Parts: sequence; C-alpha cells; structure tokens
Amino acid sequence: MIRPLIWKEDHILLIDQRVLPQKEVWLELRTWEDVYEAIQNMSVRGAPAIGVTAAYGMVLAANQAQTDSELKEIGKRLSASRPTAVNLAWAIERILSLSNRNAFTILAEAIEIEKEDIAMNHEIGRHGASLVPNKARILTICNTGSLATAGHGTALGIIRTAFAEGKVDKVWSCETRPRQQGLRLTAWELLKDGIPFASIADSVAGSLMQAKEIDFVVAGADRIAQNGDSANKIGTYSLAVLAHHHNIPFVIAAPSSTFDTRIPDGSYIPIEERGSDELAEIERVRVAPPDCPVYNPGFDVTPGELITAIVTEKGVHQPPYHFS
Amino acid sequence: MIRPLIWKEDHILLIDQRVLPQKEVWLELRTWEDVYEAIQNMSVRGAPAIGVTAAYGMVLAANQAQTDSELKEIGKRLSASRPTAVNLAWAIERILSLSNRNAFTILAEAIEIEKEDIAMNHEIGRHGASLVPNKARILTICNTGSLATAGHGTALGIIRTAFAEGKVDKVWSCETRPRQQGLRLTAWELLKDGIPFASIADSVAGSLMQAKEIDFVVAGADRIAQNGDSANKIGTYSLAVLAHHHNIPFVIAAPSSTFDTRIPDGSYIPIEERGSDELAEIERVRVAPPDCPVYNPGFDVTPGELITAIVTEKGVHQPPYHFS
Repeated sequence: MIRPLIWKEDHILLIDQRVLPQKEVWLELRTWEDVYEAIQNMSVRGAPAIGVTAAYGMVLAANQAQTDSELKEIGKRLSASRPTAVNLAWAIERILSLSNRNAFTILAEAIEIEKEDIAMNHEIGRHGASLVPNKARILTICNTGSLATAGHGTALGIIRTAFAEGKVDKVWSCETRPRQQGLRLTAWELLKDGIPFASIADSVAGSLMQAKEIDFVVAGADRIAQNGDSANKIGTYSLAVLAHHHNIPFVIAAPSSTFDTRIPDGSYIPIEERGSDELAEIERVRVAPPDCPVYNPGFDVTPGELITAIVTEKGVHQPPYHFS
Repeated sequence: MIRPLIWKEDHILLIDQRVLPQKEVWLELRTWEDVYEAIQNMSVRGAPAIGVTAAYGMVLAANQAQTDSELKEIGKRLSASRPTAVNLAWAIERILSLSNRNAFTILAEAIEIEKEDIAMNHEIGRHGASLVPNKARILTICNTGSLATAGHGTALGIIRTAFAEGKVDKVWSCETRPRQQGLRLTAWELLKDGIPFASIADSVAGSLMQAKEIDFVVAGADRIAQNGDSANKIGTYSLAVLAHHHNIPFVIAAPSSTFDTRIPDGSYIPIEERGSDELAEIERVRVAPPDCPVYNPGFDVTPGELITAIVTEKGVHQPPYHFS
C-alpha cells in the first residue's frame, strides 16, 4: 500500500508530493517547525494526511517543548498551518486532550490516529462502493487516495473498493488546477493499482456528462458543516452543479472527523486564498504575462442540497443532513 | 491595435501565439504548406484569425499552383488543417468562388476579408455591449480578442466596446486548459488595454457565480448550427450550465460566417481530439506520470437553449434560434 508518511524512530519520513510523480523524494521532518512548513508548502496535502502528519508533529513538539503550556502553544500554531481542513485541528486537539502529554503517550496516540484512519478509509470504501452502479464510469477530482490519507483513501478509496468488487469500468480523473493533484498524484496512484482511467482537464467534465460518459461522481471534503455543506478542492462545486444538471449522483466521501458540528452551514468555513504563482507559473516556468493579476482560492463550498450522499466510516448519510 | 498577422509584399508575418506572452516571435510564412502547419500547430488560433490566415495562404498557393485544379486541391487540403472551425472552409470557399483566381485577385479578396473581419468585430462589439449591464463583472473563456481575429475581437471585442462605454468593472478570465489561451493571450491583451481583470483557473468560475461576483458571461464560437448549438473551446458548455444554474446571462459572440446553416444541430459538428501532451506537459516539462492516459477534446457544444443571445455583426439574435 502507498503511504504518504512513515514514523521512523525519532522523526517523520514524508514523501514530497510537490515533486511527484516525476521524483520520489522523502523528506525528514525532525522538528515541529519542519512539520509546519511541510503542511504549509503542501509537501503533504489532503485533509486526513495532514491530520496524521500533525499528530506525529506533536511528538516532535513534545520533545522540543519545555512546558505543557508551550506544547499547547505549539499545537495552536500548528493548527493554523492550513486554515480550511478541519482534521488538522481535530488531530491536534485529540493529542492535547490526552491526560498524560509526554512524547511516548503522544506517539502511541499518533500511531492510533494513523491506524484508525486506514481502517476508516476501508469502511468508507465499503459503504461508498454500495452506491456505485455496475460498469460505472466514475469522475473524481483532486487526490483523495493513499497520498491524501494514511492509506487507501476516501473518494479514491471508494473507487478502489468498487474496482476490487468488479464494478468500475473507467475513472475520469480531473487535472485539478492549479496544483494538478489529479494529473500528478491520482494518475500516479491509479497507474500503480492498474485501474483503467483517463486524465482530463477540469473543463472537460461537463461535456463528458453531456455525452453520458459519467455515471457517478465522487469527491473528498476538507470540512463539512451541520447541514452538509462541504468545503473541498476548488472546482468541486462546479462538478456538483454539472452533476445535478445531468442527473448524475454526486457523492462526498470523508472520515467523520471532517464534520465541523460547531457551524450550521458552509458560510462559516474560511476559504484559503493561495498565491498567484500557483496559477501563473508551472514547474517554476512563467506562463502568464508579467504582473498578471490572479485570483486563486484553494477551495469552494458545495451546498448539501447538491450532494446525493455523504459517506463516512459510519455509513451512508442522505439528505436532508443534520450533523451534530 | 494588436494584429495577429500582417501581409508583407509576398509573404505572411504571423505572430507565434504558442510562445506569447513570454516572447513576441513573428513567423514568415512563404508557402501554403507553411500556412497549413501554422494553423495545424496553433501558431495561429481563433476561428476568424484562422480564416484570414487561410485566405492569405491561398495567395501563396496561387503562386505555387500550376493549374486551377491544383489550386482547388490545395484549398481542400488547407480546409482540413483544423476540423472544427467553419470560418476556415468559409474563407477558402470564398477565395475559390472568385471568377478570376490569380494571385492578385486573391490578394485583393484576402485584404477584403481581413478588413471586413475588423469592421464586423466592431459591429459585434457595439451590438453585444448593449446587452452588458452597468458595472458589469464579466466572465470569459479562451482568447477571442485581437489575436483570435483580424483585430478587436468577438467576445473580447464586446468587452472592449463595453469597457470603452464605461460599463465594465472587472473581467474574470478563465485560464482555458489545456493550452492556457486565457492565461497567456487574453491576459496579455487585457493588460495592454488597461482593462481591470483577474485570471482564474477554469474551475473557479462556478464558485464566483455562487458568490454573485459574475453578472455576464460571454464566449466566442467556432461553429454554430441552425438551432443555435454552438461549438467553442472545451469548457464553454460547463460555463453555460453554471450560468443557467445561477441565472446569469450567457452570450455567444461570433461573425455570421461562423454559422453552418447546412447542419440542423450540434450533433453534426466534428469535435477535434488533440494530443495528450497538451495536458500532460507544460512548456515541454512533463507533469503527468509516464504513460498516463489522457482524453483531450478541443471543443464542446453548448445547446442553443442555454444561450441567452447570439451576437453577430448583424445584431442580437435571441432564442429560439433558426439560422438558415
């Protein structure tokens, strides 16, 4: 199984997802500051993978902190390394709520969080696959696979399980501009697993639906509000509207730690705006003209009404949604 | 005014749109084969610009051809350099229907086609601007500006005219994957003209509509059927569905030479499928994993029902459409 990170005695080995699939570079994270940077610069991405990385990051923090209040302060700062994903804060809170907060107990908890994530993804896969029709042609966006989680994946985990059950004819994988996680990472995972697929530009999804080449759409989520409004990679909302227009099931897959039950709806979800170079440059080669203004939000929010089902490790949730 | 090509004594000077905006390289086309290649490899793109280039290409062909039937044969082959745009075949047919087909009469006709195109674009701009609300925030896709035509532009021509009339607050310019004509060329033109804008990934359009940041959508067309079904750059159909969902006017702008009155609807429009490297590589740097399968259609077809208005040099057409 592909894994995005490995705990190694006293440090984290993290595969650098910024240079995949051309290079397989493993970073050694030895301080919580290394972890902060790796999350912030997206060497690791995908809400569950970020959560697990942050949990191990707290082991490093426990070795660095002189006092418990310092550890809590680090936890706060680590929580702020990315604003949209809720698993990040969730994993850190879970670590900080341990009654005994030393490096050993925190390590045991981080290992537990990682194991639970893999087990949950298999459950998500099992529940989600029950919704997938036979001979399905499935559209997905971004990377929600082993690289985005501790292993197996959420939305891609459903595709993996459904494929193992013989139900998947083909996957359509959206490039996912600006950072191309679909074209780089999902394609890399699908090739490794021998699942038939084609990569497409994000703008192709609509015409494939029009041509009746898509039976099922599945995406991940970074934060889900009480009413089912789901923040996910920019472009997810467009796919949901297109699926609605074409009467195609649109399913969100995420561990239940993705629920933010403190917020009634998606308007409370902060949307991260990222730097213009992500769009204007590719592989550090400038594409846009000099001084080209860019608007580059990392996420959008799909309203619960457009979501046919939300699949967690606990089962299949159907609208109207009331998560609390 | 920006111009994509200039006739120079005995050859065509053509700005190489594949390397804009980083470099301004002018190609010298001296044979019809040069013209064929420039159209095929997209040094020139945009249906009207292709039509004008092909018309001048027929001047070169007339100098090369030994007989009139040879000239006709070249016209046929040149018409096949790109399959979707109808202006290409239209311009060549117009040249071949001259009673006297020598290089001088053909040159005069090519000059006439070019002049007419610029004049038409100003008319399209005038008619289209009448539909633009005050303080409009306008979304557009691809490049439909001076570079895509003989000058001024079609959809971008409407934006230019509306901006000159003081009606445009901001333009949202879709990157337009895979070849990024929006990010490269439209951004370049908008910067030159001082029109306020931001470039966005194609997948951002939906969330901007959701946030009520878009008042008007305008796109070009490469071929329009009797019933208004319009082929344009891949991604246009998705924008039309999104605009429909959000109750935003969606307008197509094109010269009337774009009408293919022989075909009842869009199902008769051939859709060009282009090579996988357009998606898998950027600036010749490989992004996708080796052997990554890619599906890369160049166009999609927006049904007439989703189009609020079709603007030509003749005026504003409203549904239901019956072009004959």
